Amino acid sequence: MQELRERILREGKVIGNDILKVDSFINYQVDPVLMSHIGKEFAEYFKDKGITKIITIESSGIAPALMTASEMNLPLVIMKKQPARELNEKNFITQVTSFTSRKQYDLCLSADVISEDDHVLIIDDFLADGEALTGAIRLVRMAHATVAGIGILIEKTYLPGHEKVYSHGFDVYSLVKIKEMDELQITFIDQ
Amino acid sequence: MQELRERILREGKVIGNDILKVDSFINYQVDPVLMSHIGKEFAEYFKDKGITKIITIESSGIAPALMTASEMNLPLVIMKKQPARELNEKNFITQVTSFTSRKQYDLCLSADVISEDDHVLIIDDFLADGEALTGAIRLVRMAHATVAGIGILIEKTYLPGHEKVYSHGFDVYSLVKIKEMDELQITFIDQ
Repeated sequence: MQELRERILREGKVIGNDILKVDSFINYQVDPVLMSHIGKEFAEYFKDKGITKIITIESSGIAPALMTASEMNLPLVIMKKQPARELNEKNFITQVTSFTSRKQYDLCLSADVISEDDHVLIIDDFLADGEALTGAIRLVRMAHATVAGIGILIEKTYLPGHEKVYSHGFDVYSLVKIKEMDELQITFIDQ
Repeated sequence: MQELRERILREGKVIGNDILKVDSFINYQVDPVLMSHIGKEFAEYFKDKGITKIITIESSGIAPALMTASEMNLPLVIMKKQPARELNEKNFITQVTSFTSRKQYDLCLSADVISEDDHVLIIDDFLADGEALTGAIRLVRMAHATVAGIGILIEKTYLPGHEKVYSHGFDVYSLVKIKEMDELQITFIDQ
């Protein structure tokens, strides 16, 4: 997606070789026009896949996932990060380690908002080591629902998440793929 | 807002006298059509107030705030909840106690995405004891920006947040106001 790539080149900040900060248009500040275009792009790509629900992980995935849900006229389900002491027996829970902070947290999907008939499209902002995304996939499977597609804004193809997710045959659509990056240059894979 | 009131009556669950669970259309699951109508409603009410940015608190405020930002064609800024060890000197931080869990957390506004010229509209899902909202107001003031309006989906007028916020003369628009509730009945204030 040319628009997202240009925005990353103009406003993104690379820290070391792994962290790409996109605080001005995705994380701390969100550009609703860009999010609307992203929603249309995912809706177009996944329109014939029989999707029944959009699922995302709080909180940076919510904006693009909501715009996709709005475009496809489907409900949005949010998986929550929460400490173990708030566990509820009706929820599906799995443990995930954050790529950015290295902290462990419990990712939670409410059993009330998913059924085994659902074909879900998982939307998230980044695919890096794949911890959050594989956690989300585990939760969808615990609910006996089907992962019908995965939409990612920015994929770093040189980190382990790429292999983890593609090797399982999922239908992944990443709007922008980064092959390598450092503080001087970001190299994209042409799509 | 009649649509939101009807939805609360149909799908909301009251626990005790204080907690209203709206998991099926606002929190765990989000209805994008309802959120779009909420965005239009806030945009119409605040259209002549000189708003420059929409601000919300992660994560349940993000969906209605994004739709408002989209409708008003303004950037959305997200205040993040994070533990103290991730503090960054360039961020504004204040401490808040969660109404639902009673846990304390640090609420954080990135200094990079707000300026003293900003007139912000703060959007959040609930106004209960006002802890999160008054924390958000403190952060906007630390940045020397102006709180030009406050948009709330569901206000519980019998809890302390109402008095805290209205007594300071803010322009508050609550889509639905609840005067009292228990597990048998929810009484709204007619608007």
